[in-house]
Amino acid sequence: MADEVILLSVWASMFGMRTRIALDEKKVKYEYREQDLWNKSSLLLEMNPIHKKIPVLIHNGKPVCESLIQVEYIDETWPGENQLLPSDPYQRAQAKFWADFIDKKVNVTARRIWAIKGEEKEASKELMEILKTLETELGDKHYFGGETFGWFGIYNKFGNMSIESECPTLTAWAKRCLERESVAKALPESEKVTTFISQRLGVE
Amino acid sequence: MADEVILLSVWASMFGMRTRIALDEKKVKYEYREQDLWNKSSLLLEMNPIHKKIPVLIHNGKPVCESLIQVEYIDETWPGENQLLPSDPYQRAQAKFWADFIDKKVNVTARRIWAIKGEEKEASKELMEILKTLETELGDKHYFGGETFGWFGIYNKFGNMSIESECPTLTAWAKRCLERESVAKALPESEKVTTFISQRLGVE
Repeated sequence: MADEVILLSVWASMFGMRTRIALDEKKVKYEYREQDLWNKSSLLLEMNPIHKKIPVLIHNGKPVCESLIQVEYIDETWPGENQLLPSDPYQRAQAKFWADFIDKKVNVTARRIWAIKGEEKEASKELMEILKTLETELGDKHYFGGETFGWFGIYNKFGNMSIESECPTLTAWAKRCLERESVAKALPESEKVTTFISQRLGVE
Repeated sequence: MADEVILLSVWASMFGMRTRIALDEKKVKYEYREQDLWNKSSLLLEMNPIHKKIPVLIHNGKPVCESLIQVEYIDETWPGENQLLPSDPYQRAQAKFWADFIDKKVNVTARRIWAIKGEEKEASKELMEILKTLETELGDKHYFGGETFGWFGIYNKFGNMSIESECPTLTAWAKRCLERESVAKALPESEKVTTFISQRLGVE
């Protein structure tokens, strides 16, 4: 039986993008189903009854929830040339640590820039500190960060910051990520994101 | 060279207990160093400069941070008879999902019962709902939940709830966990915890 793989997500979700990148890196064929979070589908509610959140990966009818868990699941289920996580236990642990750091810090802080009115300035400052931490740490580490760093242009615009001048190593790494087909494919056009955020903020 | 394993933690930390259980299950010899979170040691700051939090596992001088990542690291570094996570990728993903659920929901909500004045009642109600979710899900799942569920008596007392009557399956499972030497050893005596929380709440 051929594998049936379905991904439930929302186009703007960085967590969903990470899973899409993982699937594409592994050359797994999957059906993408865009979800409406204001009107959740019965499939989403059935497949993630606990958190009712995207992304949900459905493999042969069985759900896998939480983006980092999905990436590990994909790596283990389709072992192949494009290994996503390092095989050395210590390096694996470090990769997971930084992926978790990005989830807890970068994504949460970045969202505050456009989701919480009045917090833009404070959140931008915090985000820059967090990015500088990554700038210092960046070596040949595995972050699953490509999708996050593809948003640099958006952070710059809405957070009124210049990541390129403050974090040149991270910027260069983000550019290398964007050259990968899987990353470029998963990221929405920045124009679409800009319009979306502008509408939420009610600014031009 | 023999492995040098050090664990930095705080006696009352459920996250630290999980890591201790994992080490004991694997029969790894380690040195436990109790930390003072109000006066952080230079070793803690050096080994976890990013979050400055416990538990930190130090293996031959190299730190591994975040409790769930530590458990996976321990499982991969000392593969042996007591496998902590299932080897099937789907079952592994599910085990990680529930461990993450416990971290995000059970531990956070339980802490609100004694850490945030005035929230005891609301938090107790939420905690019971969360435990009921686990009650429904519980089968032969791997949770790393032993240390959490060893606290049932404490939840009952401070949350004014009766977990045994509402969640009999979970209670039976918690009791089985407590029969394991590794779990019993990692859990502080409940009298010590009761005194500690009573002092924080300023109640008898």
